[in-house]
Amino acid sequence: MGADGGVLAEATSPKGMGGLARDEFEPALAELIADWDLRESTLVMACGMVGSRQGWVEAAYRQVPCTPVSDNVTRAAATDPRLDVRVLPGLSQLSPAPDVMRGEETQIAGFQAMNPDFDGVLCLPGSHTKWVQVSAGEVVSFQTAMTGEIFAALGAHTVLRHSMADDWDAATFLEAVSDGMSRPEALAARAFGLRAEGLLTPDSARSARSRLSGLLVGAELAAARPYWLGMPVALIGAPKLTAHYAEALRAQGVSPILTQGDAATLAGLRAARKKLEPSL
Amino acid sequence: MGADGGVLAEATSPKGMGGLARDEFEPALAELIADWDLRESTLVMACGMVGSRQGWVEAAYRQVPCTPVSDNVTRAAATDPRLDVRVLPGLSQLSPAPDVMRGEETQIAGFQAMNPDFDGVLCLPGSHTKWVQVSAGEVVSFQTAMTGEIFAALGAHTVLRHSMADDWDAATFLEAVSDGMSRPEALAARAFGLRAEGLLTPDSARSARSRLSGLLVGAELAAARPYWLGMPVALIGAPKLTAHYAEALRAQGVSPILTQGDAATLAGLRAARKKLEPSL
Repeated sequence: MGADGGVLAEATSPKGMGGLARDEFEPALAELIADWDLRESTLVMACGMVGSRQGWVEAAYRQVPCTPVSDNVTRAAATDPRLDVRVLPGLSQLSPAPDVMRGEETQIAGFQAMNPDFDGVLCLPGSHTKWVQVSAGEVVSFQTAMTGEIFAALGAHTVLRHSMADDWDAATFLEAVSDGMSRPEALAARAFGLRAEGLLTPDSARSARSRLSGLLVGAELAAARPYWLGMPVALIGAPKLTAHYAEALRAQGVSPILTQGDAATLAGLRAARKKLEPSL
Repeated sequence: MGADGGVLAEATSPKGMGGLARDEFEPALAELIADWDLRESTLVMACGMVGSRQGWVEAAYRQVPCTPVSDNVTRAAATDPRLDVRVLPGLSQLSPAPDVMRGEETQIAGFQAMNPDFDGVLCLPGSHTKWVQVSAGEVVSFQTAMTGEIFAALGAHTVLRHSMADDWDAATFLEAVSDGMSRPEALAARAFGLRAEGLLTPDSARSARSRLSGLLVGAELAAARPYWLGMPVALIGAPKLTAHYAEALRAQGVSPILTQGDAATLAGLRAARKKLEPSL
């Protein structure tokens, strides 16, 4: 980023916390930006699992209620003097229920920078979907549902792996959302039903993915009702995924705002840099 | 087994449908019983996934309502003339919801042989727990919940793998059963709560396994309420697992009978043999 926050160059890598030991983070970054022309002490703003206990450096959680980012960042050791690495801490909550986030706080800060007057609820769908109540620039409380990770585990590591074609059917999804909201206790039976149907009427496999996804999202919406009911809601994330959540919410009479997750992350990192270097 | 149904010898192997190609079943059996003294055309009664599409031979489902076993068995090809292999078909159901079972029908037949006058509900807990309504010797309807497989997938293939100590706490389990019954929609949030708690208060990992199991069993009990409410209930399966289900059911005022799964399987194979050779 330039001094004005504009993007000068970008690069991405699939290498992350899951596959890197502590001393492999700097080499992974160095490899990724080898052809960039860096000046001495270039500020490197990092967020997400890079700050977890297994990350480059552990950046201790900040406890809500608080602003999503602050000037409290953790310096990560780097051998290259051109890298001045700062890792943003995640957020934690003890009550009403223990919860944590890492990375989403940066997207929340980015959303707030783009929508400074927004008071309401943010939903960040993903492996660990976050429902976040924000007010007056602070994160008040949040609730995580590991809907995406449950979907992935059931689709890949149970008998359902035989039943999950790639097709997506929007009507089936919405029907399943409604079913999952009203009968969430039936998930384990409905899930096996997809397998049984696949055996008895092989063509049904084409709708299994939309059905399983809808059942899980429906249960999540039922559990998160106190978050979205009667509230302004914004969805932040990958376009396809937020579109599915938006459809499900619209069926409940909610009209969410949609924001791209990447843009929110970038705006959040920019906001965090401003906290460190207010002159920028 | 002798002519009277008594056990003459037994052997077990971990090799099953998941790891064997069609032409590897006979060698696996031959290896297992190599030192048995078999006569020509020894009847080999087989049930379970050995009769699935990927098994030794496909034994087509019989549709409920019907008796759990019949003289309808499928012969599997064997090169050894001493082996006369018969595979029991599973059961299928089209309504009220598509469902299938393989192997459990044999345990049901075994239970009925031991308890000929039982009318009520059988619960066979496992990877795919079966709730089965039996009446006048027939399986009337059934419902599968893939509770066990969901538990295994979440414990091994999600972030919860970091939080699952081996400890078991009966009080925590029962508390979670009650929570899962009354708030099944919160599963994805409660599950992530176990992870968050593990990060924020590391000692809590010791109860995570009992908690996750209870949440899933609780949701299953809520979904299966029409099966067990006000009905005589018998549990068939591995002693530890049936004991957990029994505790959960007792908290709901149900006093189930407990039957060992292995004994039921053996009695069921014996009952199936009687259908083939009524003179025995």
